[in-house]
Amino acid sequence: MVSERYRKGLTEMRRHLGTPEADEYIAKINEVSAEFAKLNVEFPFGELYRRDILDDKTRELCAVTALTVLGHALPELRVHVKAALNCGASREEIVEVVTQMIAYCGFPAATNALLTVKETFELIDAEPTDD
Amino acid sequence: MVSERYRKGLTEMRRHLGTPEADEYIAKINEVSAEFAKLNVEFPFGELYRRDILDDKTRELCAVTALTVLGHALPELRVHVKAALNCGASREEIVEVVTQMIAYCGFPAATNALLTVKETFELIDAEPTDD
Amino acid sequence: MVSERYRKGLTEMRRHLGTPEADEYIAKINEVSAEFAKLNVEFPFGELYRRDILDDKTRELCAVTALTVLGHALPELRVHVKAALNCGASREEIVEVVTQMIAYCGFPAATNALLTVKETFELIDAEPTDD
Amino acid sequence: MVSERYRKGLTEMRRHLGTPEADEYIAKINEVSAEFAKLNVEFPFGELYRRDILDDKTRELCAVTALTVLGHALPELRVHVKAALNCGASREEIVEVVTQMIAYCGFPAATNALLTVKETFELIDAEPTDD
Amino acid sequence: MVSERYRKGLTEMRRHLGTPEADEYIAKINEVSAEFAKLNVEFPFGELYRRDILDDKTRELCAVTALTVLGHALPELRVHVKAALNCGASREEIVEVVTQMIAYCGFPAATNALLTVKETFELIDAEPTDD
Amino acid sequence: MVSERYRKGLTEMRRHLGTPEADEYIAKINEVSAEFAKLNVEFPFGELYRRDILDDKTRELCAVTALTVLGHALPELRVHVKAALNCGASREEIVEVVTQMIAYCGFPAATNALLTVKETFELIDAEPTDD
Repeated sequence: MVSERYRKGLTEMRRHLGTPEADEYIAKINEVSAEFAKLNVEFPFGELYRRDILDDKTRELCAVTALTVLGHALPELRVHVKAALNCGASREEIVEVVTQMIAYCGFPAATNALLTVKETFELIDAEPTDD
Repeated sequence: MVSERYRKGLTEMRRHLGTPEADEYIAKINEVSAEFAKLNVEFPFGELYRRDILDDKTRELCAVTALTVLGHALPELRVHVKAALNCGASREEIVEVVTQMIAYCGFPAATNALLTVKETFELIDAEPTDD
Repeated sequence: MVSERYRKGLTEMRRHLGTPEADEYIAKINEVSAEFAKLNVEFPFGELYRRDILDDKTRELCAVTALTVLGHALPELRVHVKAALNCGASREEIVEVVTQMIAYCGFPAATNALLTVKETFELIDAEPTDD
Repeated sequence: MVSERYRKGLTEMRRHLGTPEADEYIAKINEVSAEFAKLNVEFPFGELYRRDILDDKTRELCAVTALTVLGHALPELRVHVKAALNCGASREEIVEVVTQMIAYCGFPAATNALLTVKETFELIDAEPTDD
Repeated sequence: MVSERYRKGLTEMRRHLGTPEADEYIAKINEVSAEFAKLNVEFPFGELYRRDILDDKTRELCAVTALTVLGHALPELRVHVKAALNCGASREEIVEVVTQMIAYCGFPAATNALLTVKETFELIDAEPTDD
Repeated sequence: MVSERYRKGLTEMRRHLGTPEADEYIAKINEVSAEFAKLNVEFPFGELYRRDILDDKTRELCAVTALTVLGHALPELRVHVKAALNCGASREEIVEVVTQMIAYCGFPAATNALLTVKETFELIDAEPTDD
């Protein structure tokens, strides 16, 4: 019943965010709007992210950049810090991108982003390992 | 008379923006505030950009990202489109970063950025070549 | 002791936000600044909202739009989701306005707004009914 | 060669913006990025705007609201002032929406929007009539 | 025919912006909306600015701060740079406030503000003197 | 091992924020990035704030202004409300600056700032006194 674009978008989204994370993210949105959930899978992940011109890691560092500068998007920043790690960025690189942003958005937005990055790292460290 | 940090910052800034461009950028600011001009060289370029964790091209794609999302920073976007090209990004990659940003800042800011990118490319194409 | 404009503004505000809600909203502000509280009643509600050119429902859908795009105004969004319902908007229309905003402010701000809309609907559903 | 969604999106876009205006808008973007142009037709107009839950006039008043609040989107505001008129909004209603926004984004953004609305009205009045 | 508040607001506005400047500012807005023009005089200048708690110079330095941080409000910044000078701020203090803002809004918004301040100073210097 | 600029910056920062507060603020950032922490001390406090052109109280009222207008910087607003009090601003003046900002950033951002100011005052009042 879902479109080809949705199917490909969900695959891409899972590759970036992780499998349970992508599905949980969309499920939460789907509870209030099936349309919004569909668009969230199909448009950024089914269209924008699937083009080969930029590699996944660069895309996710740009996502971290954007979410830092916006200032009001800390829940999404949490998601994309994990996605950046999934796509091969190091913790040091993520922190460096946020630090560079001081020059573009000032200390308040960059500081809130940095502390959100820190919390996300701590949550990851607290997760039970698979072994 | 200038600090070591200023000297290193100016070298870095010229490497990103180009030699006459960096100097002209700072000269214009210096006309109204020597302090602001000094900080602009010393802080982003003498400190942030000189760290090795991210390569120049990634830093400039992040700068293009930030200036797209801010929405009100088109003059600076022009400068960093050129800087991104100087640091090895292709035109296609710059356009792709701006296109990805539709998902983060919406069409209006992304469209204004895209048209500024286009103008910058056209200005570059209209420049006399060295041969 | 209060001005005619205050009296009319409070009537308008109660019609939009609900009677205890409007009074509680202003009381909380009044604890720190009587001036700010007075302006909040007199200016948007005593002046802007009382003009007949737009109907109440359209005004509240525009308020939901603005608070979605701002990104940092989720507490006020909660208030105006209720106000939009009070003024005749359906839940579906409120969700649709937020969804349209994806194109204007991107997914992060629109997603945070959508989840705030969802929470507000859930709070309303959890309220004891009058019967 | 274009998708069904593109075709429907372009029809919708022309209905909102006017026929030469929609095509010219997309052509300008297409010069620098065929992908961005395609997304601009397919996503907001082929998906978001085609849903029946809100009527065209309400959608365009919400677009005027969003572009006022953003502050940095005056070129897009010009386009949507015309679109709002095309979709049945009166000049008075457009001005009223911008005026309401004073309460949400303050005077500077609302004033810049109002003066852009004024310029757009003047451009329309200066256009040759068909008779 | 105008209210007491309008009359007092206009006096205050002229004291800040200068006499022909205040009247011209309002006249331009009045051409498209008498309501917006009235609110612009009555609300910020008839209410907010007339309270004694802050002196005029501090208020205008705060206005310069706000318009710098907003990023998209350069026309209003021009007006308030003049107003700050009218209210006793020195050019050096205005430049210093904009420079401090680098830390709060980053270089792009602060740079655009600084260059607008520079242009405003140059326009003032080019004005014919009264002698 | 720390630079002269860091040492002077920390002294300045403690004078504005209070001694344990400044150290705690930086320690929290230092846990995730020593570089960011160093820049936060050296740049705003070691450079910007140490210049004599503006007095400390004016600088802090401008900081409160900026953090109000940004909208997404309430944690930093809390810090600078305390700093403004430390530098000689009265509670009434802080509230007045936030109230003036209604005209520049609208009610939602100003209201969130006002309620954050209120919370900060309440936290201060709840602190044990030294006697």
